[in-house]
Amino acid sequence: DSRLTPEVGAPGGEVVLSLRRLDRIDAVDPVTASVTVGAGATLADVQAAAARHDLTVGVDLASRGSATIGGMIATNAGGIHVVAHGPMRQQVRGLEAVLADGTVLHRQGALMKDNAGLDLPQLLTGSEGTLAVITAATLSLVPVPTATTLALVGCADVADALDLLAACRRIGAIRAVELMHHNGLAMAASHLGAPLPLDTPVIVLVERLDADTGPLAEAVGARPAVLAQDAADARRLWRFRESHTEALAAGRPLKLDVALPLHQLAGFLTELGQVGGQAVVFGHLAEGNLHVNLLAPPQGATDRVLRLVAAHDGSIAAEHGVGVDKAPWLHLTRNPGELAAMRRIKAALDPHGLLNPGVMLADDSTPER
Amino acid sequence: DSRLTPEVGAPGGEVVLSLRRLDRIDAVDPVTASVTVGAGATLADVQAAAARHDLTVGVDLASRGSATIGGMIATNAGGIHVVAHGPMRQQVRGLEAVLADGTVLHRQGALMKDNAGLDLPQLLTGSEGTLAVITAATLSLVPVPTATTLALVGCADVADALDLLAACRRIGAIRAVELMHHNGLAMAASHLGAPLPLDTPVIVLVERLDADTGPLAEAVGARPAVLAQDAADARRLWRFRESHTEALAAGRPLKLDVALPLHQLAGFLTELGQVGGQAVVFGHLAEGNLHVNLLAPPQGATDRVLRLVAAHDGSIAAEHGVGVDKAPWLHLTRNPGELAAMRRIKAALDPHGLLNPGVMLADDSTPER
Repeated sequence: DSRLTPEVGAPGGEVVLSLRRLDRIDAVDPVTASVTVGAGATLADVQAAAARHDLTVGVDLASRGSATIGGMIATNAGGIHVVAHGPMRQQVRGLEAVLADGTVLHRQGALMKDNAGLDLPQLLTGSEGTLAVITAATLSLVPVPTATTLALVGCADVADALDLLAACRRIGAIRAVELMHHNGLAMAASHLGAPLPLDTPVIVLVERLDADTGPLAEAVGARPAVLAQDAADARRLWRFRESHTEALAAGRPLKLDVALPLHQLAGFLTELGQVGGQAVVFGHLAEGNLHVNLLAPPQGATDRVLRLVAAHDGSIAAEHGVGVDKAPWLHLTRNPGELAAMRRIKAALDPHGLLNPGVMLADDSTPER
Repeated sequence: DSRLTPEVGAPGGEVVLSLRRLDRIDAVDPVTASVTVGAGATLADVQAAAARHDLTVGVDLASRGSATIGGMIATNAGGIHVVAHGPMRQQVRGLEAVLADGTVLHRQGALMKDNAGLDLPQLLTGSEGTLAVITAATLSLVPVPTATTLALVGCADVADALDLLAACRRIGAIRAVELMHHNGLAMAASHLGAPLPLDTPVIVLVERLDADTGPLAEAVGARPAVLAQDAADARRLWRFRESHTEALAAGRPLKLDVALPLHQLAGFLTELGQVGGQAVVFGHLAEGNLHVNLLAPPQGATDRVLRLVAAHDGSIAAEHGVGVDKAPWLHLTRNPGELAAMRRIKAALDPHGLLNPGVMLADDSTPER
């Protein structure tokens, strides 16, 4: 296909393939709540097409204007609504993909149940381009919420935040539960030129799919909180969470995306303080997904943080994938048998190692132990 | 493990492995809404353990007393609540499994986000025992509904049933949308010794996760309907759907589990009438998942029905898997490249073909074309 244009030569002599021009968006089907799109379509463009039918994509990201559906599937993107709709994996109803030998896999058509053979689309989702080039996808869509309620809630510590999470689960209809700490919120407020909305050690943003504020107020209980007055106010409060990344950018932090079991969160955060540097941690509370940002990180900080994650039974790669950078640490999270099985699958589908060499399964990711 | 007892020799000399005694059920974790269980635990036993925390498994089956979690994962079981909670695949948060060479894959711990490497649990889900022996799993749990509303709704035809489905999607909180036809409902009513509840060509059972009957009445509109008066009445109405299988059993029907795109349902059913025999069709409307039962099927009926499914862009295996029986027809639903990729993955993980020989990927499933 002439639209698949090799763009630039990568440092190691690899060819970089851009699928940005495979940006077709087929008609949204409101009966099956699905749409088929090219891998290069951006999330924002798919959201706009779906919105005309009061539907949207279950995964949303701040980078929606540049994130492509193909990339989001290849990395099994997560984001702020996983607690409500699951990660990208759960939105994928069908895929078209090309193997290294040119074989075209085609499983589309928006069937909700299809157990005919191994589920290759699920294998390819999150495979980071190591097994095939995803060229198109059929996505499930979810209703655009007709009303939401939102609050920033002040918590005494992480244990208190987990109590709030449990209360949120009881009232149900949760759309987002985001974790912030005082230092990150202060930097975000300063970046926005806004006063600090809450002065507690831990701050949780809760968004619900319900116009009634009663259940949310019940879950918040006696904690200090700022309740959004209207949609514009909700967007204003979201900015405190969303601008963490921008507020930190000037300090060029070491950024690590990890996941911890919820009962290990507090212990991990305490020990993280002993790694050195200044840790600013925020993320998606319901999944224990932390974005660890280390300002002025000491030598070897990546290794120390990822080993700490593994020691607390966490994952070194939560929603951003392994890529090249984390490949040497994959063995911390996956056992030698699992790594061997992954290599066998990689060799079976891409025997010459043409696709994304060095990504995920680096040669040194299974050191002798 | 001495609890893995080869039970009987199968006809071809194979060893049948029962994992029924791997029935451990760990403590239910209400914070992460998950539980880790042995592959041999029955769905009913896991439901009972979860119920003590007001939680349950997102997939429910009439065979809950005998269906094991390992089997449900190996076949990616579906059932009546897929419209609300997705199939078994969506409940699997972690797996322990053993490859043919004895390698133990272990990915448990209930992490909600874990993109560290290829997702082997998702590859194994629905693989029908061809790639590994699943020995344990961590499952996501869902809240037990505090209240539900239920109605049997009379529809003029399948198109009218799809209009009802669209109306149900608009009101939301749908837990089940089951399709029946007049002939099946009449047989079920007779089997139950009950009067026919509705006398329309198509009958749809709708269950909602809401105590308020208003939205359901709105979706039903002017159609004839029987609304459940209380929980006991709801169970009574469910029996009309659940007893279809028992009511048909004496006739020893040819049973085929298939899925069709929703816009192909009506066309498929019309052409099904030309296959011969007496077709009794019921199933899960939201997923286009039809259980086709042919009484007095003519010679070659399986081939004719499955080719009809494929001609309508459907899947020959929706929620019951491919097994041995449907393996020769897998090529109708999957293209040669996909079948070759599945074979390569099978050979990579089970090079000697020890696990479930003849299941899913039969030697004759990719005839020369």
